[in-house]
Formats: sequence, structure tokens, C-alpha cells
Amino acid sequence: MAELVGNLLVAQSGGPTVAINASIAGVIQEAGKHPDTIEEIYGGANGIYGILNEDLIDLNEEKARNIEGLKSTPAAALGTCRYKINFDKEPEKAAKDMDRLFQVFEAHNIRYFFYAGGNDSQDTSNKIHEEAQRRGYELNVIGIPKTIDNDLPYTDHCPGYGSVIKYNAATVMEVAFDVASMATDQGSCCVIEVMGRAAGWIAAGTVLAKREPSDAPHIILLPEIPFKEQALLEKVKETVAENKYCIVVVGEGLKDEEGKELGAEDAQVDAFGHKLLSGSGERLAKIIQNGIGTKTRSVKLGYAQRAAAHCGSATDIEEAAACGEKAVRAAVEGNSGYMVKLVRKSSDPYEWTTELHLLSEVANVEHTIPRDWITEDGFLPNEKFVEFAKPLIFGELKLNWKDGLPRFVRLEKNLVEKTLPDYM
Amino acid sequence: MAELVGNLLVAQSGGPTVAINASIAGVIQEAGKHPDTIEEIYGGANGIYGILNEDLIDLNEEKARNIEGLKSTPAAALGTCRYKINFDKEPEKAAKDMDRLFQVFEAHNIRYFFYAGGNDSQDTSNKIHEEAQRRGYELNVIGIPKTIDNDLPYTDHCPGYGSVIKYNAATVMEVAFDVASMATDQGSCCVIEVMGRAAGWIAAGTVLAKREPSDAPHIILLPEIPFKEQALLEKVKETVAENKYCIVVVGEGLKDEEGKELGAEDAQVDAFGHKLLSGSGERLAKIIQNGIGTKTRSVKLGYAQRAAAHCGSATDIEEAAACGEKAVRAAVEGNSGYMVKLVRKSSDPYEWTTELHLLSEVANVEHTIPRDWITEDGFLPNEKFVEFAKPLIFGELKLNWKDGLPRFVRLEKNLVEKTLPDYM
Repeated sequence: MAELVGNLLVAQSGGPTVAINASIAGVIQEAGKHPDTIEEIYGGANGIYGILNEDLIDLNEEKARNIEGLKSTPAAALGTCRYKINFDKEPEKAAKDMDRLFQVFEAHNIRYFFYAGGNDSQDTSNKIHEEAQRRGYELNVIGIPKTIDNDLPYTDHCPGYGSVIKYNAATVMEVAFDVASMATDQGSCCVIEVMGRAAGWIAAGTVLAKREPSDAPHIILLPEIPFKEQALLEKVKETVAENKYCIVVVGEGLKDEEGKELGAEDAQVDAFGHKLLSGSGERLAKIIQNGIGTKTRSVKLGYAQRAAAHCGSATDIEEAAACGEKAVRAAVEGNSGYMVKLVRKSSDPYEWTTELHLLSEVANVEHTIPRDWITEDGFLPNEKFVEFAKPLIFGELKLNWKDGLPRFVRLEKNLVEKTLPDYM
Repeated sequence: MAELVGNLLVAQSGGPTVAINASIAGVIQEAGKHPDTIEEIYGGANGIYGILNEDLIDLNEEKARNIEGLKSTPAAALGTCRYKINFDKEPEKAAKDMDRLFQVFEAHNIRYFFYAGGNDSQDTSNKIHEEAQRRGYELNVIGIPKTIDNDLPYTDHCPGYGSVIKYNAATVMEVAFDVASMATDQGSCCVIEVMGRAAGWIAAGTVLAKREPSDAPHIILLPEIPFKEQALLEKVKETVAENKYCIVVVGEGLKDEEGKELGAEDAQVDAFGHKLLSGSGERLAKIIQNGIGTKTRSVKLGYAQRAAAHCGSATDIEEAAACGEKAVRAAVEGNSGYMVKLVRKSSDPYEWTTELHLLSEVANVEHTIPRDWITEDGFLPNEKFVEFAKPLIFGELKLNWKDGLPRFVRLEKNLVEKTLPDYM
């Protein structure tokens, strides 16, 4: 097989994480080791959205120090997007987009394409791989897994997930100390809302804060288990009677047995007719306070949790970088149409490696928590989940602190000269 | 003056912080150096509330390692309360409470009393000091300042404040990286709700995240400046046009020019007639999204911010411990009726010391941000505030991490034998 020589393009997609920049750093650093094969290293600004606009960043112009610094910088340093090439819903636009993508690839002699993201991004990567084959355009495409939601199949877990649950578990632990210290005989509750709409991986991960049976979190409401108000109120009451306080963790999209989102029924409607739904945490806090009379406050971590580099997992960052490196090695070896996956060899001691998985099998499959990883009453993940999640938070990401705050990297982002007419 | 020999009682009150346990550690460690004067070292369980119940913790029974560990443990390790001896509103009950307190003091030969807390606690300390003089009961009372709200007068700032603004500023910085990386031409906003109902110190502190004029936070809504919806929407629109994204920080109790809380008017009412007010952050996010059409999400840090030891300020912890030590030294030297205060000698380099201030002057005075520390348009604190706040977040509190999460200290809390009849 003749070696494929040309330029590399890497891009990021979907919600940012603490670890996704480490994958990009892994790609860039590994690519630098193959100068005979990979000539230029480009980054797509804001994912596919920017590539369609021919917004390519010349990553070889960036300082080496900053490339390494990406490993301790949250969010998506190249910029990200939620743009989807949607052949099902908008086939004409999708075909046009695909055509444009290959114009950009050809114009810049892109022969290696890496896309770091979740389900949608793996789907996009697969479509680009297939289109390249159809066109007979030599292009090696490898997907890099990334999502705090941890809902990609086949990979043991997703880069980004370890950091979000480390921060969330530390936060649950700290809030629990706070609430417990305030709890006198009247009792005290706090509901902590975390991300994760369809799968409960993020909420479940906070169980790592629990070192003793009486420790918080006392209740974790998972989307995998339909919400039953009465059962919850009973459980909270019981917990407060026992410990004087109760910490409840809930994902953002809690639904009842009919699949209706909590509080959707009595949501206010604003002047424009938009439903003014408050978050599940705030709504749940009111349900508990009104239901059993115990003072209940809420915390909504929102974007803070997926950007919390100051409490990032060193293991997560190492794995994310390894996924980027593996993607480049696999592509240089001639592979295309695969996603890098993390494979666990042992939980204790924790040992892992990277392998490849066919993109066509990955795309659009959603991975939720197995029922037998959740306690019978549905209120907590069990020891099987703990064995899975525990090693993912090992090690503390070291940041560069200056004047009491972290120094993150901002890339220069020198754009490559455009050669095509405007697209959008 | 004959030396006052007897037992020491220390207690915590009001909302927990990251630094209040360091003050308690300071008291205990300093007290241990005066064995001829201070015989037993007791802690009040849950502040005045527990002392009235004669719930006294024998702190000399605790492991020395755990006392030092208190300096990196958030919340109130002795337990806290919001109990107030209220002579204005309930004079009879207050008189009864005061009587009981002195029964407990006498029963346990308490001669040194230290109360760490905010405005109410300093008021309580002062009342106890005055009552002791009235009764001719020899008792040296010193208040220790504590509040994330930073609203105590005369002290340069309050222990607990540096840590909350360090965590909040780091969070604003991280969320800003996240939102900026997602912002394409449509723009993106995030509202971060922080604590602080009457004074804007906490919200203002997040300005430290701003290293360049274009950095977040772009807008900080302070309770010191009445909220004007139109002016805010204009400012957000301007910011998004310039940077593609906008980060707004808001305190929980944002009020308009008539002093009405944001959203109070159209709050839903639940089955019990309770107003279901959502937080100011969530409401503001809706106002922005509906007002200018830019996608806007919210974060509500709630209790997480005042418990975030994992991002605590080493300066804050050192000062908190020093306040505890100073309180003991002052009392042993024969002082009573004072609060320890932090005095700044220089901002750059940062130098400080501890002094005493008359409790009678401190109690119930609220300290807000001077108008000339805020920009003319009212949307940000200015360089005078930055000079004040900057050194307070210097240094990172080191925690004891195990298996990826911090190990905090839990005291044994052996209770001293009760000798009085039940009270409540």
C-alpha cells in the first residue's frame, strides 16, 4: 500500500468538555511525529460549521507550549458547533454540504480527517468516510470519542466523563458537609441538578462521593427509572429522619412514567407563548419542600460542570490525549471509518488501552446504564456501577495558577488562506 | 489583674464557609498553648442552639491530626444554626435564653467564649458580653468574623470571602471558555447566579476572572445598583455583537428600582399558596433569551460556592486561622467585648494583621460596596474594587486527595456530660 501523503484536519463538535482539548493536543503532537506523511496540520474552526466556511486554523503556527497547555484548558479551543449534516431531514442541503466539504478537502489536500465528538459527530465522520470511498477521494477518517454524557456505545467510557463526575462528586461531597452542618432537628435538604437528559451516567457518577452508607448522595434520580413523586417523598422523609439531612442528585430531563417532563404541566407561558420551565432541580426542591415541609434548596451546575478544569481528572486527560494519538497512528497506518475506543483491561488495578471500532456500528446508538447496575428501588447505582466509575476520576489535573486563578491557553488561530468562493 | 482560669467554649453560627473551620482550628491550637489559663476546650454543637441544650463537644478528645485537618474541611464542623436571641421581637424568650446560657456557662465553668459568625453572631456575642458584666460573671467574649457575604463593617474583609470569590471567579472563567467556544454567529449567553442578597461583594468578586477587557464577566448585576431591564438588554446585545458571547453574573436577590424582586410579580402559586419564585439567574436567562433572541442558559452555584474547599484560597484559610488564634490571645490577655478584625497594611505586596474592634460598634451594621468602586454605568466593579479583592484569592488550598476525591475531617464529637435539666 502506497503511503497517503497530505494534510491533516482535526475539528471538535458538540458540547465542550474538560478533556476534548487534550484529544486535539494528542492529534497535533502525534501528527508532528509523521512529517513524511502529514504535511500541514489544520484545525476546523467551530467544527463542520467552520470547515464549510473554509475557516481552517494553521495549527503548526501555534506555540508548542500552548499545544501542551491545551491538556489543561477546558472547552473547545478550536471552537465547536452543533451543526449536523442531516440526510434524513434535509437531504438536498446535506448533499450540498457534503459536496462543499470535499471541495474544501481537495482545495487544501486534506488526506487525514479527525472529528472529536459524540453520537452526531461519529455519524458525520462515518458519512464523510463513506462519501470519500464513493468519490474515490483518498481520505482516512477516524472519529475521536468525546462526551460528558458517556452515551457512546462500544467504548468502555468516553473522554470527558471522568472529569465531569470527579467535579460533580466533589461538589456533592462539599455541599453535603455544608447541609449536614446546618441541619438541626428540623432537617435540611438540597437538590443538585446535573447534566444528562437521556442517560443517567453523569448523575450516577456522583455516587462516588459516598464512602459510608449514610453519606451523600442519598438519592440519585436517573432518567433510566421513571420518576414517582410519592416514592421519592417517602425516601427523602426516611433519609431526613435518619441523618437530619438529605442530598438528592437529579439529571436535567427527569420524566414521569408517561414520559412527561417534571413540571411541564403547570409551566408558565411568557408573552411569546414560550413555556417558562424551570430546571428539574429547582422544581424538585419545591416538590420536596411543599411535600414534606423540610427546607430544601437547589444547585444547578449547568455549564460549570463540563468546564471545571480546576477539578479535572488526570486519568481522563491522559485517556483523551491517548485517543487523539491513537487516531493519528491508526490513520497513518491506512485505517479509515473507525472510532477510537477505550478498552478496559482491569478495574483494580486500573488498566486500559485504545482500540478501533467500526464507525458504521457506533453512529446513533445510545448507551444507557444497565438496569442491573442500579439498586432494586431505583434510587442509587450499585456496586457494579461503582467498580466501573471509580478509576475514571483518579488523579488531579494540574493547572497553571497565577494570582489565584488558572491560566488557560488561547490559540492564536491564524487562518489558512481561502481559495474557494464563499459558501453560506 | 488576676488571671482568669477556666474552660473555653467556641461555637459557629450562620451559613457555613470554606474557612470557618480554620478559625476553630486556630482557637483550639492557640488555646492548647495556654494550659495554665484554659483548662478544657469545648465546642458548642450547632451554635447557640446546641449550647442552650447543653450539647458541648469535648474538643481535647479529638485527634490533633483532625484539628489541623479542619483547615481544609469546608462547612461548620461543630455544626451551626440560625438561632437568634432576639430581644427586640421576643424579649421574654430572649431573657429566658440568656438565663439558660449562663446556667450552662456556670455549670461548665466557661470563662472564655468565642463565637464565629456574621452580623447576628457578633450581636449575640456582644449581648453575652454585656450580660456577663451585668451579672458580674467573669467571662471573656471575643467574636470571630465569618461570612462569605463580606458584609461585616470595620474588618478589611471577612474570612470565607476570599475562598468563595476564588471558586466563583474560576467558575466564571471556565464557563466563559465553554460558552465562547460554542458561540458561532448566532451568539450565546450564560447567566451565573451567585449568593449575596443585600450586598454585591460575592458577585463583584468574579470580576477577578477578567484579565483582558473582552474577558468575562461582561456584566455583573449588583444589588447596590437597581436593575433596569432595558439597559441590561442593550448591554448584552452590545457585548454579543462584539464578542459573540456574553457572561452575566447576578446575585440571588436582584431588585428593580422599586425594590421589587425580579419576577416576583408573575410568580406561580402552588397548591398551598406558596409563591414559586425561580432563582434570579434562571429568570434573567429567560428575560435575555426572550428579549434579544440569543440562546441563554443559567448556572446556579448555590451552596456549592460556599463549600468549595477544592478551590479554596490559601490566603483566606491562613487569615481565618489567624483570627481564631488572635481571639484566644486577646481573651487570655483579659479582653472581652471585641471582634477580631483583619487590617490591611498594603495591597501590593499584600500585608495584613489582626486587631480588635468593639463589638458594640460592629453589631447589626451592614457593609455594602462603595458607589465609587463601581463603574459609572453600574455594570462592573472598577479598579478600586480589583485592588481590594485581588490578593484575597492568592494561593491554592491543598486538600488531602484519596481515590480522586478530597478527604475531609469529621470530628468524633464526644459530648460533655450534662448536669442541667433539659431546656427545650
